[in-house]
Amino acid sequence: MINITRKEHFNAAHKLHNPAWSDEKNLEVFGKCANPNWHGHNYELFVTVRGEVNPETGYSINLRELSAIIRKHVTDKLDHKNLNMDVDFMKGLMPSTENVAIAIWKELLPFITALGCTLYCIKLCETENNYVEYYGE
Amino acid sequence: MINITRKEHFNAAHKLHNPAWSDEKNLEVFGKCANPNWHGHNYELFVTVRGEVNPETGYSINLRELSAIIRKHVTDKLDHKNLNMDVDFMKGLMPSTENVAIAIWKELLPFITALGCTLYCIKLCETENNYVEYYGE
Amino acid sequence: MINITRKEHFNAAHKLHNPAWSDEKNLEVFGKCANPNWHGHNYELFVTVRGEVNPETGYSINLRELSAIIRKHVTDKLDHKNLNMDVDFMKGLMPSTENVAIAIWKELLPFITALGCTLYCIKLCETENNYVEYYGE
Amino acid sequence: MINITRKEHFNAAHKLHNPAWSDEKNLEVFGKCANPNWHGHNYELFVTVRGEVNPETGYSINLRELSAIIRKHVTDKLDHKNLNMDVDFMKGLMPSTENVAIAIWKELLPFITALGCTLYCIKLCETENNYVEYYGE
Amino acid sequence: MINITRKEHFNAAHKLHNPAWSDEKNLEVFGKCANPNWHGHNYELFVTVRGEVNPETGYSINLRELSAIIRKHVTDKLDHKNLNMDVDFMKGLMPSTENVAIAIWKELLPFITALGCTLYCIKLCETENNYVEYYGE
Amino acid sequence: MINITRKEHFNAAHKLHNPAWSDEKNLEVFGKCANPNWHGHNYELFVTVRGEVNPETGYSINLRELSAIIRKHVTDKLDHKNLNMDVDFMKGLMPSTENVAIAIWKELLPFITALGCTLYCIKLCETENNYVEYYGE
Repeated sequence: MINITRKEHFNAAHKLHNPAWSDEKNLEVFGKCANPNWHGHNYELFVTVRGEVNPETGYSINLRELSAIIRKHVTDKLDHKNLNMDVDFMKGLMPSTENVAIAIWKELLPFITALGCTLYCIKLCETENNYVEYYGE
Repeated sequence: MINITRKEHFNAAHKLHNPAWSDEKNLEVFGKCANPNWHGHNYELFVTVRGEVNPETGYSINLRELSAIIRKHVTDKLDHKNLNMDVDFMKGLMPSTENVAIAIWKELLPFITALGCTLYCIKLCETENNYVEYYGE
Repeated sequence: MINITRKEHFNAAHKLHNPAWSDEKNLEVFGKCANPNWHGHNYELFVTVRGEVNPETGYSINLRELSAIIRKHVTDKLDHKNLNMDVDFMKGLMPSTENVAIAIWKELLPFITALGCTLYCIKLCETENNYVEYYGE
Repeated sequence: MINITRKEHFNAAHKLHNPAWSDEKNLEVFGKCANPNWHGHNYELFVTVRGEVNPETGYSINLRELSAIIRKHVTDKLDHKNLNMDVDFMKGLMPSTENVAIAIWKELLPFITALGCTLYCIKLCETENNYVEYYGE
Repeated sequence: MINITRKEHFNAAHKLHNPAWSDEKNLEVFGKCANPNWHGHNYELFVTVRGEVNPETGYSINLRELSAIIRKHVTDKLDHKNLNMDVDFMKGLMPSTENVAIAIWKELLPFITALGCTLYCIKLCETENNYVEYYGE
Repeated sequence: MINITRKEHFNAAHKLHNPAWSDEKNLEVFGKCANPNWHGHNYELFVTVRGEVNPETGYSINLRELSAIIRKHVTDKLDHKNLNMDVDFMKGLMPSTENVAIAIWKELLPFITALGCTLYCIKLCETENNYVEYYGE
């Protein structure tokens, strides 16, 4: 068994704002991230899959297939979009890095499983100074 | 004479949209960058200043002063903001990387000149795959 | 449960020298790192915390709070300092990357725990070619 | 116990081609990687070793020794070589990133064990967009 | 006038070998780069174009057009190829970083000029430790 | 004519302190960099040389020769050293990034010239956020 990771990108706008709260509380908790007119990031997404090496190919997963799955089901829906407004699988979710990573996990899980591999980790970097890693539990 | 460069950051939302054009033309020219609900980037800003080395300090410019100037006059106004809506010195300008870099040049020029140095270059990276460099002419 | 990581920096001087040994043995074991007049590094520190996502904020931990804790209790005490001479929590310890990482773990553990999160990993990069990861045991 | 990682490099040529298959099937599975006249990469290798910290040195392993072992037994044999033709420990193996990482694990394991440490992970980056991690099982 | 740069990639095999020389002289001059069975690199290509900002778009050049030109005329012909054997515009040239950069300049010049811009610089990185910059003279 | 750049490294300690000044003035001008017990950095050095391409080799300069010159005359003298105390060619100079870069230029100039090339630029990065570039005048 070996872990293999594919890196993909998307650039998106978002804001962190809880509509159940006052503007003051939103500013206190979220700081600059609560700016009403949005801000944005270059997100880096690392998808790690665990599988056995196929002796005929030397591959645990074909990275071209993995990349195509990530693009079709995730990054094409996130890239150059507004994470609060434009993304079906983010509807009703605060677009924190944590929640975006967990939502990406849920989107990818059935497709990775269908290939006979195990989805191992979603790592999502929001800036060069912070990232999250979600292992499915 | 020596060139010294300070790197700063800001994360912002924007869109590229010419209101004089149809939606079709905007989409044709700007592609995904025309998404009506915005997208965003982690911008990296490199400010290069040219000056003589002061024999008492070994400095051509004090980087703490240079950083404070950039933050006060530029990145504090751009960080976690919407480049189309929130920034006084971007009003009426298409927020392309080119125009943001030129606007930053104009903001910084008087303050760098007042310190007895020459503003040499504004380099602005929008993604890891593209950046502009403006030398003032 | 999700892991979130904050990156911070410090620049410090140190040397590796065991006073119980001869200069020859110090040189043999530590090589250039034993230079009596010190050398130094730009250290990169990655603090990984594990926690549950709060449904009201989408946060597992507020990164501004995490950053403030790291700066107050760790990097403000290490930055632009001599790791052999200037740092209270390094007293009597060889300032190898391993020992600095373990000492940082001990400094941060009570503050992370007090926030209801689990300190998961301290990763400390001394150069671009070597780093340590400490998981608390 | 602490994990310590050393990064090394090698630049090599390879192709992915299964001689039991037709050219069409090789192209279908391996795409551009099947180019008969080879292509190549700048590989980045991260060797992670787990050990106890020696109180006399502050070291879990002496990185100069670790680096010398990696260079002698692995990267000197891979650097500026053809992974299909020139490397004794790759003979008969498809030089996928997975297989190169596993082969490196096997080469290094006895030497790391002999130093009283545990080989923890081989991470091998083929491009900036993909890498594998092998933990020995 | 402003400079704008697009980064593209290609992974290729090559060797440095002058057929007019003995094997000994090739080895003496080119060292490991003369390995008869090839080696390879992940090349990073930065194409810098100089132009005026169009007030209607904020663009000096449309980066999607620039990227398409670079891919069609340069990187699609170099990626996953052998620089000594597979590339029409490298025929008869020693595939040193210098010569590849100059050949790329010649390929791109007419297409950049046709767009009303000036080709300013070809920067080609062979490893993280060396790169060339060609300005056309 | 083409520019070629070689990157090298050194890790060193230093402090910025003008002995003609009071401690207060040193602290005011140099801030944390005046810490009496030193601090340090991982310096990255980029040496750019300009030359004609030799048609027999495709080289403007042999990078192995350039690297050997830089190591012998510069980085071996700076690496794991104290820039205020240990380096002959820094004696009497404030070890600011500016002054270190200019001193490196002076050390390398005769050796690059002797190879028939032009020393074009010394770029020295002290942290990821600041660097200087010296062009010899």
